[in-house]
Amino acid sequence: MIARPHQHWLPRILVWHGSVLPKIYSRLLLNFLLSIVVIAILPWYTSLGIKLTVAPFSILGVAIAIFLGFRNNACYARYVEARLLWGQLMIASRSLLREVKNTLHDEPNIAEFTRLQIAFVHSLRLSLRRQPAKAVLANYLDDKQLAQVLAVQTPANRILLMMGEWLAVRRREGKLSDILFHSLNNRLNDMSGVLAGCERIANTPVPFAYSLILHRTVYLFCIMLPFALVVDLHYMTPFVSVLISYTFIALDTLAEELEEPFGMEDNDLPLDAICNAIEIELLQMNDETVIPAKLTADKHYQLT
Amino acid sequence: MIARPHQHWLPRILVWHGSVLPKIYSRLLLNFLLSIVVIAILPWYTSLGIKLTVAPFSILGVAIAIFLGFRNNACYARYVEARLLWGQLMIASRSLLREVKNTLHDEPNIAEFTRLQIAFVHSLRLSLRRQPAKAVLANYLDDKQLAQVLAVQTPANRILLMMGEWLAVRRREGKLSDILFHSLNNRLNDMSGVLAGCERIANTPVPFAYSLILHRTVYLFCIMLPFALVVDLHYMTPFVSVLISYTFIALDTLAEELEEPFGMEDNDLPLDAICNAIEIELLQMNDETVIPAKLTADKHYQLT
Amino acid sequence: MIARPHQHWLPRILVWHGSVLPKIYSRLLLNFLLSIVVIAILPWYTSLGIKLTVAPFSILGVAIAIFLGFRNNACYARYVEARLLWGQLMIASRSLLREVKNTLHDEPNIAEFTRLQIAFVHSLRLSLRRQPAKAVLANYLDDKQLAQVLAVQTPANRILLMMGEWLAVRRREGKLSDILFHSLNNRLNDMSGVLAGCERIANTPVPFAYSLILHRTVYLFCIMLPFALVVDLHYMTPFVSVLISYTFIALDTLAEELEEPFGMEDNDLPLDAICNAIEIELLQMNDETVIPAKLTADKHYQLT
Amino acid sequence: MIARPHQHWLPRILVWHGSVLPKIYSRLLLNFLLSIVVIAILPWYTSLGIKLTVAPFSILGVAIAIFLGFRNNACYARYVEARLLWGQLMIASRSLLREVKNTLHDEPNIAEFTRLQIAFVHSLRLSLRRQPAKAVLANYLDDKQLAQVLAVQTPANRILLMMGEWLAVRRREGKLSDILFHSLNNRLNDMSGVLAGCERIANTPVPFAYSLILHRTVYLFCIMLPFALVVDLHYMTPFVSVLISYTFIALDTLAEELEEPFGMEDNDLPLDAICNAIEIELLQMNDETVIPAKLTADKHYQLT
Amino acid sequence: MIARPHQHWLPRILVWHGSVLPKIYSRLLLNFLLSIVVIAILPWYTSLGIKLTVAPFSILGVAIAIFLGFRNNACYARYVEARLLWGQLMIASRSLLREVKNTLHDEPNIAEFTRLQIAFVHSLRLSLRRQPAKAVLANYLDDKQLAQVLAVQTPANRILLMMGEWLAVRRREGKLSDILFHSLNNRLNDMSGVLAGCERIANTPVPFAYSLILHRTVYLFCIMLPFALVVDLHYMTPFVSVLISYTFIALDTLAEELEEPFGMEDNDLPLDAICNAIEIELLQMNDETVIPAKLTADKHYQLT
Repeated sequence: MIARPHQHWLPRILVWHGSVLPKIYSRLLLNFLLSIVVIAILPWYTSLGIKLTVAPFSILGVAIAIFLGFRNNACYARYVEARLLWGQLMIASRSLLREVKNTLHDEPNIAEFTRLQIAFVHSLRLSLRRQPAKAVLANYLDDKQLAQVLAVQTPANRILLMMGEWLAVRRREGKLSDILFHSLNNRLNDMSGVLAGCERIANTPVPFAYSLILHRTVYLFCIMLPFALVVDLHYMTPFVSVLISYTFIALDTLAEELEEPFGMEDNDLPLDAICNAIEIELLQMNDETVIPAKLTADKHYQLT
Repeated sequence: MIARPHQHWLPRILVWHGSVLPKIYSRLLLNFLLSIVVIAILPWYTSLGIKLTVAPFSILGVAIAIFLGFRNNACYARYVEARLLWGQLMIASRSLLREVKNTLHDEPNIAEFTRLQIAFVHSLRLSLRRQPAKAVLANYLDDKQLAQVLAVQTPANRILLMMGEWLAVRRREGKLSDILFHSLNNRLNDMSGVLAGCERIANTPVPFAYSLILHRTVYLFCIMLPFALVVDLHYMTPFVSVLISYTFIALDTLAEELEEPFGMEDNDLPLDAICNAIEIELLQMNDETVIPAKLTADKHYQLT
Repeated sequence: MIARPHQHWLPRILVWHGSVLPKIYSRLLLNFLLSIVVIAILPWYTSLGIKLTVAPFSILGVAIAIFLGFRNNACYARYVEARLLWGQLMIASRSLLREVKNTLHDEPNIAEFTRLQIAFVHSLRLSLRRQPAKAVLANYLDDKQLAQVLAVQTPANRILLMMGEWLAVRRREGKLSDILFHSLNNRLNDMSGVLAGCERIANTPVPFAYSLILHRTVYLFCIMLPFALVVDLHYMTPFVSVLISYTFIALDTLAEELEEPFGMEDNDLPLDAICNAIEIELLQMNDETVIPAKLTADKHYQLT
Repeated sequence: MIARPHQHWLPRILVWHGSVLPKIYSRLLLNFLLSIVVIAILPWYTSLGIKLTVAPFSILGVAIAIFLGFRNNACYARYVEARLLWGQLMIASRSLLREVKNTLHDEPNIAEFTRLQIAFVHSLRLSLRRQPAKAVLANYLDDKQLAQVLAVQTPANRILLMMGEWLAVRRREGKLSDILFHSLNNRLNDMSGVLAGCERIANTPVPFAYSLILHRTVYLFCIMLPFALVVDLHYMTPFVSVLISYTFIALDTLAEELEEPFGMEDNDLPLDAICNAIEIELLQMNDETVIPAKLTADKHYQLT
Repeated sequence: MIARPHQHWLPRILVWHGSVLPKIYSRLLLNFLLSIVVIAILPWYTSLGIKLTVAPFSILGVAIAIFLGFRNNACYARYVEARLLWGQLMIASRSLLREVKNTLHDEPNIAEFTRLQIAFVHSLRLSLRRQPAKAVLANYLDDKQLAQVLAVQTPANRILLMMGEWLAVRRREGKLSDILFHSLNNRLNDMSGVLAGCERIANTPVPFAYSLILHRTVYLFCIMLPFALVVDLHYMTPFVSVLISYTFIALDTLAEELEEPFGMEDNDLPLDAICNAIEIELLQMNDETVIPAKLTADKHYQLT
């Protein structure tokens, strides 16, 4: 997802792609049909002495709105933190290569080190999305490295260990003083921080009961809403009921998307594009000539 | 608790395990029965000139929802911070071992140091859960170490002191320069930060009066709710009353679970699984061959 | 205050100690009596053409609840930060002593340095609570030190200066390299950060007008509430009025307690117990044999 | 935008420039006209059995206000973070030059290094605003540098690489010890952090669906509002409807401005003025004699 | 402003100084008079078919309360951050002098360096309050220094440069090793961070449109409120209208005070007192004998 050009307010209201509408329109339709049924059976159940008014639903609606607001905040915070971590990976990647280039002036194999950096980035992306890593990592690692990396629980951490060893060899050869090794090593620690931060977001969801309680009350609220509105609004019930239901269900659904920011849904982070940008950046810093093409958004402003 | 696969919205509403329903259904049932009693005695107490309307409960309901929202936020923040601290322990554990391996290249006893690292992790977990540590720690410490560790107020801190001494011995032997010792020592300080952070969360609850005021108002509100709703809703009172009570009581109960994130309840942190992951990670970094099995979630997506 | 064992929801509602009830029950009683007066004089003032309804109070009630929520958040944030600072003092104290023990291996007078550490902790506690420091500090400082410390605006800062000098002497004697001195000095800077952070919280209240505006509107709201409720609720007015007043006044009062977390009220921080824990910890790290007893909570779960 | 002098509350209400009114007055006018139409056709559609009341719109209005509040918070947080990053750039720029001046005492070409610093600042500004950089950067870089900088994806990062190389040359010449190089290099890392932070804010919008859901519900709410108000307010409908619509639409529009803080709208950050201030600051630290004029705000208190 | 002694709740309600009442009482009086006019003309405009009810104002009131809550939060966050920055200045000032004293043991001119430290603190205060600096700085700087400092855009930054040079001279003389110079230089960087942080708060207001939209809706809301209340409350209108107006206008006005925490209003930061405390602290660390008197609060608990 990228920033869109400014649009007039009217056409924006009608956007379909990238909104959560494709996911929830069937539920809204159901709500509309239920409202019509309620209008039809109103005389019958009123004759049974059953009645519902708006006032109690007002208490419930406000309470749900407040709790939904807090949950959305919590899920959005995960999305923001996930993006922050990938931004820190960009910072650490650039800084690490800059320091290596500036301090290991005569080193002939910097490209080798850069391949480890790029492998780290792709490895992190693929494990967060639970996609197979072998084919991609084979572009950057030799066979022995690849075997070691794929054998462990956390491939990206093993790549960090290799980067540390690459630097440690230069230290033992006297090319890096202890203080400069320490400085470069701190950049590896930054990358270790990004790795564990992303794992934390991917493996620890918002407490399930939190999502469930809101999910449940939102649906029960929307189902009972037509019964409460029909006395006051009669024929207008379906329209108002769908509008209120849309507000609550859409935000509940969006919170679910944002909760797992490393997924492949419309509002998730474009990890492919971020990895691509880091790879281009590092190769350009080495003045490489063969550089991958920049990924661009599709016509719905979507990047993967 | 782990992330669940996406479910259709309808079956999600009916989930029992992992929601707080098993804890609160008796209170909801009580609320339902009270509502029925209220319907029955309505004519009698109305004849005494007693009446209750929804309007004042609307003020109270909104106020409680706002305060409950803030309290839930505070409790959720504790859960998030606790998880963050354990993520930092993963970062520090990996970085420390990577630095040790890279800088103490010829050291034959790195496995010994790694055992201290693993002992620290388990010791922290067991003291947070107030479980006996001796049997577990005996797997990683020799008898003398074990005796020293169990004799003090904070076993994990004594293990840190041993790790520092292990490194200090290498410094005195000239294997580690001061700058590299300083760097490794900073990782120990990170672990000291995790230790004291977890102690802080475990020992300092959200101010008791905060929980109590909300607990009290939520219950009094739910008890008086049927009296307020019955005039408008009559036969529908039990259903609406239980729905509103569920929203408030469930969130109050969940806040209590999240407030103590190191417990063993459904929505608490899976410390066993995190410790297991750190142990596997460190052993794999040392290319050990005997590695414990990975803990997996049960059929209700629960990890301990 | 410590974490309480889990209680059944019913007895929790009746807790007296530790809740703010002992402080506010007289105001709630006043509110109850006022409600009864209002019921009695209702016919008289209605005959004068004076009437009040719930609707305008609904606007006011929600507005006050929102603002009170924000203020409670601000006060709770002070409480949380204060606790965090004391947690950082624990971290810095442990880390400093660990580094001293590991790097000054042959130093015979580490106990002397540890006494300065413990004096710092008690000095900070006593100045935050504006209690006399002389008698306590005399246990840890010699007469010359004591005189210097008590002569200045900030005793704890003078103790830090002494700790720095103790380390500087070892540096000048060649026992500490510059890099290790720098590392130890950073721990002193951490302690300096805790000191100034606590001073900041103790000396700078939440802007007085913030507290005052809410205090004032909460009381005026509670005083006018019976007049607004009586038309709808009649005989039930006192009960509903007291319940709503309790919610608002109790949270206003709790916010005031949390605003000054270093006080001696029920919901303030147990500084005595934290200092005691740090002292025990440091003495155990030195394998001392004479160690003070651990402070424990009283039967109302209160620690000072 | 700069801080304005204090104004009497009455004239402030009438301010036009810098408020979002110029952007939204047409929509408010439309709302006013719609309200008049609604008054006119009220008897007709009431005769068809269609009616709308305020109560359901109350639920919707509060829910939208809560969600809009959270979104405004999220957008304002981006604005605040963007400003913070540019403040950190000021800090890093000053600190870097101070350290260079203090440690490279005899260096004759510090002005050369300062030109790279200033080029970095302008390059960042111009790429955030997607403006052409060549003409501006030509004032600070020689032709070879300019060609290298313009050839890559991120010009500012290439300038950082040049600054690192400038320092590395001094290190290789023995003018800078490793420890001082390490210290200066940390300032470059700070600037790298600012660069990637700004890129993150510029490239990753608030999730599009978040904006869209609120945008949509705000407009549908404002369109239906006159129908709901007219029964109660009749001739006053247009005034109250426009006031409520103004509150919601103005905040929705402002959130959009704040969401992209690097733009050129009234409430965006004055990057030109910040760059100008950094440039003046650095040149004055070098006691340069030719210094650009300070940018000042226009009569509407606007800076670009 | 300082923390007040605890007061009984009743007299607190009547406090005048330090509350925002002196600023807003004229507006509240206007609101009271308007309410009386509204009561008088009610029969007349009702006969014209104009009517207003509370329900729509309920939507508006809640929405404004929510948005005002968020804005107050944003303004309070600026106040808190400003205080935090001045706390960090205290930390950096103490730590810098402690390190200088501990590491430059034989230096005869530490008092000279301390004068630069104190000049920095006063210079920052005076530029934040846009007060003339010459007379105050002349107490701490010699003529040449004073001329240099007053010639530049940011006097405090020039003083930092002088402090860096003072340390650099000692480094070049061999009295400070590179590592200790690096450590002291980091304290200067901390002070640079405080400087730029305060500049950021002083120069970048909360987006003007944010304040304006709320300011405007609060006033229009308060003006229309008597018309809405009068139908229900009649003779009680002025009292309820003033109470509601007070809640909203007082919080709007307080937000404006907190937004610019470096001003001289009742609820702004006591910069004079903080500077005084830092000066006393540093002079006492040097065991100076001539020390300025401690500033104390006036009888309204105000410090400047």
